[in-house]
Amino acid sequence: MRNPNVPESLEGWWILHRMFSFDRRGFGALSGKKRARATDDALDLLNSLKAEDGDVGLAQIVGHKADLMITHYARAYDGLAHAQGAFDRLELTDHLVPCESFTSVLELGLYDATAKIHDELGTSNLKPHSSEWNAAFDQKVSRQKSSPRNAERLWAKIPPRRYVSFYPMDKKRGESVNWYSLPYAERARMMVEHGKIGRTFHGLVTQVISGAIGHDDWEWGVDLYADDPLVFKKLVYTMRFDEASARFGEFGRFWTGMQFTIPQLGVFLAGEASPALLEQTAALR
Amino acid sequence: MRNPNVPESLEGWWILHRMFSFDRRGFGALSGKKRARATDDALDLLNSLKAEDGDVGLAQIVGHKADLMITHYARAYDGLAHAQGAFDRLELTDHLVPCESFTSVLELGLYDATAKIHDELGTSNLKPHSSEWNAAFDQKVSRQKSSPRNAERLWAKIPPRRYVSFYPMDKKRGESVNWYSLPYAERARMMVEHGKIGRTFHGLVTQVISGAIGHDDWEWGVDLYADDPLVFKKLVYTMRFDEASARFGEFGRFWTGMQFTIPQLGVFLAGEASPALLEQTAALR
Amino acid sequence: MRNPNVPESLEGWWILHRMFSFDRRGFGALSGKKRARATDDALDLLNSLKAEDGDVGLAQIVGHKADLMITHYARAYDGLAHAQGAFDRLELTDHLVPCESFTSVLELGLYDATAKIHDELGTSNLKPHSSEWNAAFDQKVSRQKSSPRNAERLWAKIPPRRYVSFYPMDKKRGESVNWYSLPYAERARMMVEHGKIGRTFHGLVTQVISGAIGHDDWEWGVDLYADDPLVFKKLVYTMRFDEASARFGEFGRFWTGMQFTIPQLGVFLAGEASPALLEQTAALR
Amino acid sequence: MRNPNVPESLEGWWILHRMFSFDRRGFGALSGKKRARATDDALDLLNSLKAEDGDVGLAQIVGHKADLMITHYARAYDGLAHAQGAFDRLELTDHLVPCESFTSVLELGLYDATAKIHDELGTSNLKPHSSEWNAAFDQKVSRQKSSPRNAERLWAKIPPRRYVSFYPMDKKRGESVNWYSLPYAERARMMVEHGKIGRTFHGLVTQVISGAIGHDDWEWGVDLYADDPLVFKKLVYTMRFDEASARFGEFGRFWTGMQFTIPQLGVFLAGEASPALLEQTAALR
Amino acid sequence: MRNPNVPESLEGWWILHRMFSFDRRGFGALSGKKRARATDDALDLLNSLKAEDGDVGLAQIVGHKADLMITHYARAYDGLAHAQGAFDRLELTDHLVPCESFTSVLELGLYDATAKIHDELGTSNLKPHSSEWNAAFDQKVSRQKSSPRNAERLWAKIPPRRYVSFYPMDKKRGESVNWYSLPYAERARMMVEHGKIGRTFHGLVTQVISGAIGHDDWEWGVDLYADDPLVFKKLVYTMRFDEASARFGEFGRFWTGMQFTIPQLGVFLAGEASPALLEQTAALR
Repeated sequence: MRNPNVPESLEGWWILHRMFSFDRRGFGALSGKKRARATDDALDLLNSLKAEDGDVGLAQIVGHKADLMITHYARAYDGLAHAQGAFDRLELTDHLVPCESFTSVLELGLYDATAKIHDELGTSNLKPHSSEWNAAFDQKVSRQKSSPRNAERLWAKIPPRRYVSFYPMDKKRGESVNWYSLPYAERARMMVEHGKIGRTFHGLVTQVISGAIGHDDWEWGVDLYADDPLVFKKLVYTMRFDEASARFGEFGRFWTGMQFTIPQLGVFLAGEASPALLEQTAALR
Repeated sequence: MRNPNVPESLEGWWILHRMFSFDRRGFGALSGKKRARATDDALDLLNSLKAEDGDVGLAQIVGHKADLMITHYARAYDGLAHAQGAFDRLELTDHLVPCESFTSVLELGLYDATAKIHDELGTSNLKPHSSEWNAAFDQKVSRQKSSPRNAERLWAKIPPRRYVSFYPMDKKRGESVNWYSLPYAERARMMVEHGKIGRTFHGLVTQVISGAIGHDDWEWGVDLYADDPLVFKKLVYTMRFDEASARFGEFGRFWTGMQFTIPQLGVFLAGEASPALLEQTAALR
Repeated sequence: MRNPNVPESLEGWWILHRMFSFDRRGFGALSGKKRARATDDALDLLNSLKAEDGDVGLAQIVGHKADLMITHYARAYDGLAHAQGAFDRLELTDHLVPCESFTSVLELGLYDATAKIHDELGTSNLKPHSSEWNAAFDQKVSRQKSSPRNAERLWAKIPPRRYVSFYPMDKKRGESVNWYSLPYAERARMMVEHGKIGRTFHGLVTQVISGAIGHDDWEWGVDLYADDPLVFKKLVYTMRFDEASARFGEFGRFWTGMQFTIPQLGVFLAGEASPALLEQTAALR
Repeated sequence: MRNPNVPESLEGWWILHRMFSFDRRGFGALSGKKRARATDDALDLLNSLKAEDGDVGLAQIVGHKADLMITHYARAYDGLAHAQGAFDRLELTDHLVPCESFTSVLELGLYDATAKIHDELGTSNLKPHSSEWNAAFDQKVSRQKSSPRNAERLWAKIPPRRYVSFYPMDKKRGESVNWYSLPYAERARMMVEHGKIGRTFHGLVTQVISGAIGHDDWEWGVDLYADDPLVFKKLVYTMRFDEASARFGEFGRFWTGMQFTIPQLGVFLAGEASPALLEQTAALR
Repeated sequence: MRNPNVPESLEGWWILHRMFSFDRRGFGALSGKKRARATDDALDLLNSLKAEDGDVGLAQIVGHKADLMITHYARAYDGLAHAQGAFDRLELTDHLVPCESFTSVLELGLYDATAKIHDELGTSNLKPHSSEWNAAFDQKVSRQKSSPRNAERLWAKIPPRRYVSFYPMDKKRGESVNWYSLPYAERARMMVEHGKIGRTFHGLVTQVISGAIGHDDWEWGVDLYADDPLVFKKLVYTMRFDEASARFGEFGRFWTGMQFTIPQLGVFLAGEASPALLEQTAALR
């Protein structure tokens, strides 16, 4: 983008969250054979999607908004369409009603680095926005992308923690409070503060930020993964007081529940008491 | 959280409210045998959920938004998922359509205590946010949790009063009126005022506050329990004038109705005149 | 409530408005015998609800939002639940889809009287909020309730006028325009102005105000009854300019139509031209 | 209303807009005989409604919001209920789903005339709001109503132009921008400006304004009729810049499409290419 | 419009976007023969619509909001109605549920040119808004329309790029931030800035702007076409910081996915892995 007012970002996995209501009664009323076949077909597909260059996350959601959340990671955008189309042909979908989704791409924001790159190029002899300047700019951004630490974060698999909370968010564009009208330095300062508060929860939570502008109805998606569901409350409440969130954060619906592994899909579908499922989940890790 | 801008809180029961529309005509059209079986299965499950380490509340809701509200208390979050999954496999759910829910955890806010702890530690020799300071901080919070009075409130069962009103709420984050941008002392002062008004209804109403940040679409849930349904109107109206509510409260939908006991489920399902049901409820207590 | 910032109020009938879509085609396709039975059962129930200590209003609503509005009056809140549960077991409900409702209690606001009571007690020797003061306060409010004029208004039956318009409303709590942050005297002044404008329509319209705070999603419900449907437009438009409404009124959806009597239910259900129905309605009164 | 702050208005036809989704596939799957019968029954009803003292407009709507819009004009409000009830018993409605409606009454606003009447009476010797004053006031308004030009506009039939665009609107009541808090003269000035802009489209468009306050969820309905659908865009865009609209207009959904005549209903239902239908429409006029 | 406060615009294709949910399971359960017939009928219609004076775009949408987006271009508005009516009679629509649509007309805004025309005529001797002045004005606008560059843009076919993102938008009319209350020159300046940022993405994206005022619920529609779906994110994010968007843009839902050609419809419907589909799409171009 090379625009001094706009932070650059790095992108990794394309991500598709899908939320479904599950008709437990209807599925339970099928013959054992039919249920086994529907389950096996779903397992085959999910395993193959995971085996391909991507990942698949499954979670049992609490509340009426959804029963099941599937998180697809794909190296290319087209992989999301492939995952969606293939899943929607499964017999299992006779008992799953899609009720929400979110399309985004894993994103590392570069507020600090962008400012530094503009500063460095400002002291070079290159004419701003000349093709040499553009090339130098792009190279510096690209160097960020290939740093081992960033590459690892951009292509990390879905964190195997027991609980997940997903929510979409926007930065406010109100009549007097408008994130996008603020000077770059002020936004950068608030993002640093925001990050500091996040880091006080280091070790307790793994956070995945993805960008959805141009693809979905909110600007970003946030996935939180933790071993204790109370951590979601403590983290999100604490952050609500930091300036970037208190004044500029607008939040969508929260989708929270318990992750389980692909082999446990049958247990989830059969509805054999979730605690059992969860013990197994814990054991598997 | 140990952040001087953020009040600490204590957490007790995990709580799941579920609201359902009940197809009285469809259920009534089943054979007596089928109805009895569906009722007995539901009774068995609800009794076992109550017998486990938790509680189950049932209420007949007035109006079109729902006919039945079930309130689940569970010691662990996973217990909510278990309750939901098990209930959704009941034959009875063929005639219950889930239309709303709310996931939260019973919460005691500590505006005053948090300020005192920061003050006490401020006069100690501990370096702020050092591991010693953190340990001292956590110990002081933990002491609050184990105080008999707090422990009793955190793990109290659902109040057995005849009427219940549930609603979710947020603190406003407007462009100029923003709870989360206020200084700690100002928020603490308003919460004290708010509490005082609540206490003028002492004895007439039992209030249960639960926190949902990170788990559901509103920040808090409020359950009011009373023996006279007019008390809900008087209390909520009075509170609407106190500063914390007048300027900063944002309220969701209200779900109000009459509690009944698990053994009365059959009466509710058969729809034998509610007054009879309610007389029984009164007698049972 | 005894709070000098909060106007006292008197409460009469508990009120439940229920709006339904009517499947005229489906009902018309039943055999004459089935239709007669469904109609007779409904008549029996509505007559018995009216004969009990309460009232029942019926109205044919114009537009797609609903075809039928039932207004239940009951002396006790439990009576609303009873009316709802009993109606929902009628065969007729196979062709009625509930699409809206409103639960409230008939209310007389006491802005003036409350101020006077506080003034009177302020010049007494009683210690404010002592038990003697409270008793004196409650006695004065109670005296209002038993005044013949107020008692008559609190327990008046549904006005038998040909047209009805129902809508719910709130007082605004915006960031700068906030009814609940205003001084008592300013609110009282605006309510007096508001009442004066209403009185310029004296004789043309009968108004029933009910309070829903703590029970439903809006703070108040307003029923207007008139012999000329144009009066609704003239009255509501005129009021929109008075300060209490212009600046502080927030209005929900409007449900407007023609009342008919219980014996006319069959005519409504058969759909024999509404004009005929209306002539009969006029004749009956 | 006789209130110097409130413009008087004249009212003509009662108007009911009804929007329906049409299940073309389901209707097309009926036997030819059934389709013919359903079509004929609908034609009979629509013709009789038009022959009565009123009018019936039909339009094919573009987009997913609706396929068919019916506009009923009736001399009395009860006629709208009659039209609705009778139409809803048609066999055709098995394949029409009502998805929106708007109830209103054709209205001529009298901003200028009202001010003049108050001025005239102010210089008379009548005591304001005495019964003589009221009688004089009403007589002057009534004289407006019976003027031939106004009477013609109040009772004009639906303009037989090829295209129609309907939308509801409100005047804004924001926290700082509030139409209903403005002085009369300022509102009158803006309405004059608004009218002037409308007149630059004279001949290109016929506009019908109707008032819905007290009857439906928006304050006014606007119907635009034109021979060129691009005119809707040019007119509404131009008006959006005039002060009354730019600052105070709030607009609902837009329902735009092509009018056709009652005899063409069969063509619409059979779905024989709309262009053919439209050629016929053009020819018929 | 000839109003110095209102920019003129040129209009080309009428455009109808239609979004559908596709019931893959239901369609897949049909016999091969039925599927072939339904597919062939759809192909025939789409080909004929494309062969007529217009265009047809198809896209597989990612997420739950829709599975298929069809974009119709027609020289006349009536062509949109024709396309909709004809498509809705296809057997295929038994498995397609319309869930959104947008009706608009391709538009080139003339902020600069309009100002110039008013300036030129201001220095002429013509009396403003006389019939000579109007004729001169219209001639100058018309000259813009027939310029080869504009004519090409007004009647360009749907860009054959692999990815598409569609979203509707408004210009804000808030209480203090109101696009339509700004002076012409200020709006013109911001539109120039906005255009400059768009041009930094030259070659990477093809943008189609269409106007919907008077026809649909948003003022404009934006279609972006690109060979890399990440470009949508980069472009829309960058633009969000320019003043016209940051302060005045209000955005609807985003509909993003992969275009495919009419001959590939069968592949889409059969759901044979989207990657294969996409390889073919790439090859076809």
